[in-house]
Amino acid sequence: MEDGVDHLAFERNKAQFDVEDMKIIWAGSRQDFELSDRISRLVASDPAFRKDDRTTLDRKELFKNTLRKAAYAWKRINELRLNEQEAYKLRSFVDQPAFTDLHWGMFVPAIQGQGTDEQQQKWLPLAYRMQIIGCYAQTELGHGSNVQGLETTATFDPKTDEFVIHSPTLTSSKWWPGGLGKISTHAVAYARLIIGGEDHGVHGFIVQLRSLDDHLPLPGITIGDIGMKFGNAAYNTMDNGVLRFDHVRIPRNQMLMRVSQVTREGKYVSSNVPRQLVYGTMVNVRQKIVADASVALSRAVCIATRYSAVRRQFGSHNGGLETQVIDYKTQQARLFPLLASAYAFRFVGGWLKWLYMDVTERLQANDFSTLPEAHACTAGLKSLTTTATADGIEECRKLCGGHGYLCSSGLPELFAVYVPACTYEGDNVVLLLQVARHLMKTVSQLGSGNKPVGTTAYMARVEQLMQYHSDVEKAEDWLKPNVVLEAFEARASRMSVACAQNLSKFANPEEGFQELAADLVDAAVAHCQLIVVSKFIEKLQQDIPGKGVKKQLEVLCSIYALFLLHKHLGDFLSTGCINPKQGSLASEQLRNLYSQVRPNAIALVDAFNYTDHYLGSILGRYDGNVYPKLYEEAWKDPLNDSVVPDGFKEYIQPMLKQQLRNARL
Amino acid sequence: MEDGVDHLAFERNKAQFDVEDMKIIWAGSRQDFELSDRISRLVASDPAFRKDDRTTLDRKELFKNTLRKAAYAWKRINELRLNEQEAYKLRSFVDQPAFTDLHWGMFVPAIQGQGTDEQQQKWLPLAYRMQIIGCYAQTELGHGSNVQGLETTATFDPKTDEFVIHSPTLTSSKWWPGGLGKISTHAVAYARLIIGGEDHGVHGFIVQLRSLDDHLPLPGITIGDIGMKFGNAAYNTMDNGVLRFDHVRIPRNQMLMRVSQVTREGKYVSSNVPRQLVYGTMVNVRQKIVADASVALSRAVCIATRYSAVRRQFGSHNGGLETQVIDYKTQQARLFPLLASAYAFRFVGGWLKWLYMDVTERLQANDFSTLPEAHACTAGLKSLTTTATADGIEECRKLCGGHGYLCSSGLPELFAVYVPACTYEGDNVVLLLQVARHLMKTVSQLGSGNKPVGTTAYMARVEQLMQYHSDVEKAEDWLKPNVVLEAFEARASRMSVACAQNLSKFANPEEGFQELAADLVDAAVAHCQLIVVSKFIEKLQQDIPGKGVKKQLEVLCSIYALFLLHKHLGDFLSTGCINPKQGSLASEQLRNLYSQVRPNAIALVDAFNYTDHYLGSILGRYDGNVYPKLYEEAWKDPLNDSVVPDGFKEYIQPMLKQQLRNARL
Repeated sequence: MEDGVDHLAFERNKAQFDVEDMKIIWAGSRQDFELSDRISRLVASDPAFRKDDRTTLDRKELFKNTLRKAAYAWKRINELRLNEQEAYKLRSFVDQPAFTDLHWGMFVPAIQGQGTDEQQQKWLPLAYRMQIIGCYAQTELGHGSNVQGLETTATFDPKTDEFVIHSPTLTSSKWWPGGLGKISTHAVAYARLIIGGEDHGVHGFIVQLRSLDDHLPLPGITIGDIGMKFGNAAYNTMDNGVLRFDHVRIPRNQMLMRVSQVTREGKYVSSNVPRQLVYGTMVNVRQKIVADASVALSRAVCIATRYSAVRRQFGSHNGGLETQVIDYKTQQARLFPLLASAYAFRFVGGWLKWLYMDVTERLQANDFSTLPEAHACTAGLKSLTTTATADGIEECRKLCGGHGYLCSSGLPELFAVYVPACTYEGDNVVLLLQVARHLMKTVSQLGSGNKPVGTTAYMARVEQLMQYHSDVEKAEDWLKPNVVLEAFEARASRMSVACAQNLSKFANPEEGFQELAADLVDAAVAHCQLIVVSKFIEKLQQDIPGKGVKKQLEVLCSIYALFLLHKHLGDFLSTGCINPKQGSLASEQLRNLYSQVRPNAIALVDAFNYTDHYLGSILGRYDGNVYPKLYEEAWKDPLNDSVVPDGFKEYIQPMLKQQLRNARL
Repeated sequence: MEDGVDHLAFERNKAQFDVEDMKIIWAGSRQDFELSDRISRLVASDPAFRKDDRTTLDRKELFKNTLRKAAYAWKRINELRLNEQEAYKLRSFVDQPAFTDLHWGMFVPAIQGQGTDEQQQKWLPLAYRMQIIGCYAQTELGHGSNVQGLETTATFDPKTDEFVIHSPTLTSSKWWPGGLGKISTHAVAYARLIIGGEDHGVHGFIVQLRSLDDHLPLPGITIGDIGMKFGNAAYNTMDNGVLRFDHVRIPRNQMLMRVSQVTREGKYVSSNVPRQLVYGTMVNVRQKIVADASVALSRAVCIATRYSAVRRQFGSHNGGLETQVIDYKTQQARLFPLLASAYAFRFVGGWLKWLYMDVTERLQANDFSTLPEAHACTAGLKSLTTTATADGIEECRKLCGGHGYLCSSGLPELFAVYVPACTYEGDNVVLLLQVARHLMKTVSQLGSGNKPVGTTAYMARVEQLMQYHSDVEKAEDWLKPNVVLEAFEARASRMSVACAQNLSKFANPEEGFQELAADLVDAAVAHCQLIVVSKFIEKLQQDIPGKGVKKQLEVLCSIYALFLLHKHLGDFLSTGCINPKQGSLASEQLRNLYSQVRPNAIALVDAFNYTDHYLGSILGRYDGNVYPKLYEEAWKDPLNDSVVPDGFKEYIQPMLKQQLRNARL
C-alpha cells in the first residue's frame, strides 16, 4: 500500500474465511508459502528489477534490459547463496523471459536426462556455473509438431571419429529455440543420425555455437534472431533464433549417449536404459506447464476481480455512487468461473506433481504399467489448462472494459507472453488426439483382463455408467460431490464409447480416426474436465484447516463443475446423462453460488499473495487506488516527452496551413 | 507473385467455381469491386505506404511514421482528386490507425448530425479541408459505458454569454479519445449542461484545444497521450488522449444545438427535431463496425487458409511429402466455420447497410416505428460479429502453429488492433442486454395488437414455434434452408419466452432482469445468430451469377448454421427443438460439408481480393512462398544489426568469465 490507504478494505472486511490460511492452501504448504513470499518481496523491493517501463523500449533496448536483469539475478543468486529452488523462484518473479529459462529449463535437463555419466560430469559443472550457456535446438522452420520429420543431419565420419552436422535444406533451419539467436554458446541440437548411409532417426547432440572468446559464431554456423513476436515486451525479451549448419564437425562423444551409442567403428547400439524414460521427462515438463497455467490465470483473475470492485458503472440513484461492476450478474458469470478455474488448476497441478514422483519411482523399479495413462493424462491436462488460461486471460482483459487494453493494466502483456503455451510442448489439439487414442485403446480393452488404471479407472464401471441417469431433483442436489462426479463420469465414458462405436464402422481404423477427429477431441476434453473436477473433489476430502477455508473451496469446486456443465450442456443432454430440467437447476444453483462468492471475491484473490510488482497492473493494485495511478502513469509515455510531437512541423503543420502540396513526405 | 512462381497454383486449379464472379459477390457489386481493387493496388504499389517495419519502431518513431503516412495520404487524395468514398478506401487500405480516422469518422459526423445549419456552415468547410483537426471527446477516466454518468460540466455564464467547460474531478478527465493526445486542434466534447444550477444532462460542445499557430494547448487545457496499448504497433500509432479542463470558456454558439438550444437568456429549449435521430447515427456507426468485422475476420481466415495449404506435418509415407495441415479434419473443423462466418458477416453487413438507408428514409418521413427494432438489431449484430471476429482472429493465429506468433505472420497485430471493437461503441455484453430488453418487451406485447416487426417478426408465430419439433430424419435434411431456419427460430423464441416466464416470477422486474442477466444474454445471442443465419439464407434466394458460385455459398451457409447448432447444442436440446439423434446428424452433415469446401478453400479466400500489402503476412502470401520469405524477413530485425548484441560485454561476458561478482549492473 504505497500511499497508505486501502481503498479495498471494505471489501476485505466482508470475507467469511481466514485469508492467511487460504494462502497456505494456495501455496501448497507453509514452507512453499514462505519461500514464495520471501523471494517475491526480495524481487519487488529491488529497483533493479523494475519492469513498468518495458513496453516503451524498442527491441534492442528491451533485449539489453533483459541481459542486465539476467546477469543481476545471477549475481544476486550467488551473493545470497540461493539454493536451486530459491533461484528458480527468483527467476520466475523477475517475470521477464530470458535465455536463462532455456539454459536451466531445457539445456541442463536434456544433458541430465540423455547424457551418459561421463557426459554429465564434463558438461554439467560448466553449465551450473554458467561458464557455458545452452539452448535446446529442436524445431525447424518447416517442422514443429512432428519431431520425427526433422531434416537436420548428423552424419558419422569414421575417418575422423566425428559427426558432421548439416542443414540440407532451408526448411531444416533450426527455428524458434529461445536463447539461440544472440546468447547461447552451446546447444543440444536434434538431428537425424546417419551412419554409412543408414538413417537411425532423431538424436540429440551437444554443439558449440559461438566462440567463448569473442562470442562470434563458429565456422559453418549461421545464426540470428527470428524477429518480433506478439506483444509489446512479452517474448521479445527472448532471442528466439534461427540456425543453419554447414557441415559443422563435432567429436563423437558429443552425441547424447545414455540411451543409444555410436561406437568408434560406427556401430549403432542401444543400452538397456528403458526408452520410456523420455515419457518421465515429458510428464515433468507438462506438470510444470499446468502449474504455470494456474499462476497466469490467477494473476489475470486477481487484476480483473480487484478492478471489478473498484470500477462503478450505471445504477446510480439520486446522485449516489454507481454500482460496482462486480455486483452485476453478467460480470460474475464470466469472472467467478475463472476464479474457480484458477483454484482448480492449482490443485490438479499439485496432484500432477505427485503423479510425476509416482511415475519416477515406478520407472526406477522398472514398472512401466502406469506410464501410458500418466502420459495421456498430462498431455490432456496441459492442453486443457493452457487453452482455458489463454482464453481466460483475454476474458479478464475484456472484463476490465476499455482500460484493460492499456499496457498499464498488465493484461495485454500477460496474454501475449502466455499464449505460446497453447502451442509449445505439444500443440493443444494434437495432444487431445493423443488422449483420444489412449481412450479408444482403453475402451477397446474393457472386455479383456486389462483393467483401466489411474484417471481412466472409472471406465471399469462403464456398464453402470451407460445406464446412469442423474437423480437431481432440486438445485441443491448439484452441490453433492458424488452427483457431480457421476454426471461427469457418465458423460465422458459415453462420449468415448460413442466414438469407439463410430470408429468400428470404418474398415480402416486410421481413416476412421482421421474422419472422426473432431468428435474424438470432444471426447478427450470431456475426459480431461472430469480429471480436473475429480481432483478438486479429492482435495476437499483432505483435512483443510482454517476458518471458513474449506467452505469457500467447496463453493469454488461447485462453480467450476457446474460452469462446465452449463458450457457443455449439449454433451450432457445428448448423452442422456441429465435432462433439460436438471440442466436448468444447475444454472439456478450457479447463480446462487455466485452470490456466495461475491463477498469473498477480493480475499480469494488476495490469497494468491502476489506483490504489486509481480502483478504489474495498475488496475490490479492491492490498494485499489486505480484512477490516480493510471493518470500518473500516462504521463510517463515517451510521446509525452514533448508537448508538440516529433513530426508535427513536417507533416501536420503543412496540412493545417494548406501547404501540403509542396511538402516532401 | 513477386518471384513469379505460384506455389498454390495446384490448389487454385482445384476450385469448382469462378473466383472472379465470387469477388464481385464479396465486394457487393462490380463497381465496389473495381473501387476496392483500384485503391488497394494504388496503396500497395506505393513504397511510402510500406508497413512491414512497423513492429520494430519505438513509440515515437511509430507515431511519427503515422503522421507521415496520414499527411502523405491526404496529399495523394488531393493530387488524385479522390472522392469521399475513394478517400475512405485509401485510408483503410493504408491500414494504420491514425487521428484522421476520428476526424473523418467521429468529429465531422458529430457536427453533421448534431450541429445547426449555421454551425455546419461555419465548421464543416474547415474540417473538410483539414484546416482544423477534430476528435470526439466523450469517455472519461471513470466513465465509459454509462454516458449519462459523465462528470465534465459546461456551465452557462449569462454575463459573458459563454459556457465554462470544467473537469471537476480526476475521474472526469477525458480519457481514450483517439487523436486527442497529440494532434487534434478541436474536439466535440461531451459535458453536463448546467444552467443556473440546473443539470440538463449531457450535450456536445465544440472546443478548441490547441493553438493553430504553435500547436500548444490553450490556457486551462491539460492534455497528453495515455500511453502504450495492446500490441507492437496496433493502436500505438494512435494518440489516444487524456484531457482536463480548468474553467475553459467557449462562446455559447459552440454548443451543438440541432436538437436543443440554450438562448442568450439562458433558457433551455428543444427544437422539433426528433431525438430519435441519434439512433439513426448509431445504426450507421454499427453497420460500419459489422462490415469491418467481416473484413478483419476474412483477412485472418485468408492467412490461416493459405498457410494451412502450404504447411505440412506428419503423415509422410516412404519419405514422401507430409500431409497438408488443411487436410486434417480437426483443422477443417476450426477453420472452415470461420471462413463461413466471414461470408455470413459480409452479407449481414450488406443487409445492415440497407437497413440504415431504410431507417433514414423513415426518419425523414417521421416514421419511428421500426427504430427500436433496428436499434436492437444493430446493437446485437455489433456484439455478435465483433466477439466472433476477435476470437476468430486468435483462433486463426493458433491454426498457424508456432509461426502465427511471429509478427511477420500479421496475425498478432491484426488481433491487437481489432479487439477494442468488442469494447468501443458499446461493450458487447451491455449491448446484448439491450437486445434482451427489446426481446422481453416484444414477448410481453405478443398478446396485444403490437405486431413484432423486422428481425423479430418470427415472434408472431410464437405459438407455432413453441410446438415445433424438428422433422430431420437424415443428415441431408439439414441442408434444407427452411429446416435450419425453423430450428433457429424455435430455439430463439423459446429461450426468450423462458426468460420472460422466469422474469415474471420476480416482484420487481428490474431485480429479475439483473438476477437473470446471464440467461438473458444467452437468449439475445440466440436471436442474433438467427438474424445472421436468416440473412445468409435470404442472400441465397437472390439471383447469384457465376459458375458454381451459388453452390459454394450454399455450402458455407450450411456450415455457418450447423456449426452454431453444434456449438450451442445445449440450447437446441434443452428447448426440445431437436433431439440428440438430429444433433448428431448435423455433425455428420458438417463433416461432409467440410469435405466439399476443402478443394475450394484457397479460391474462397482469394475471392476477398486482398493484396499482399494489405494482408501484411508472410504466412498468407498469395504465392505461398512462405519459408524463404520468413527466413529473409528474420534478418531484418534490429537485433540482427550486429552479430554480438548490445549488452554482451557488460552482462554476458562477465558471467561466462565468472567475473560477475565485481560487475556493476
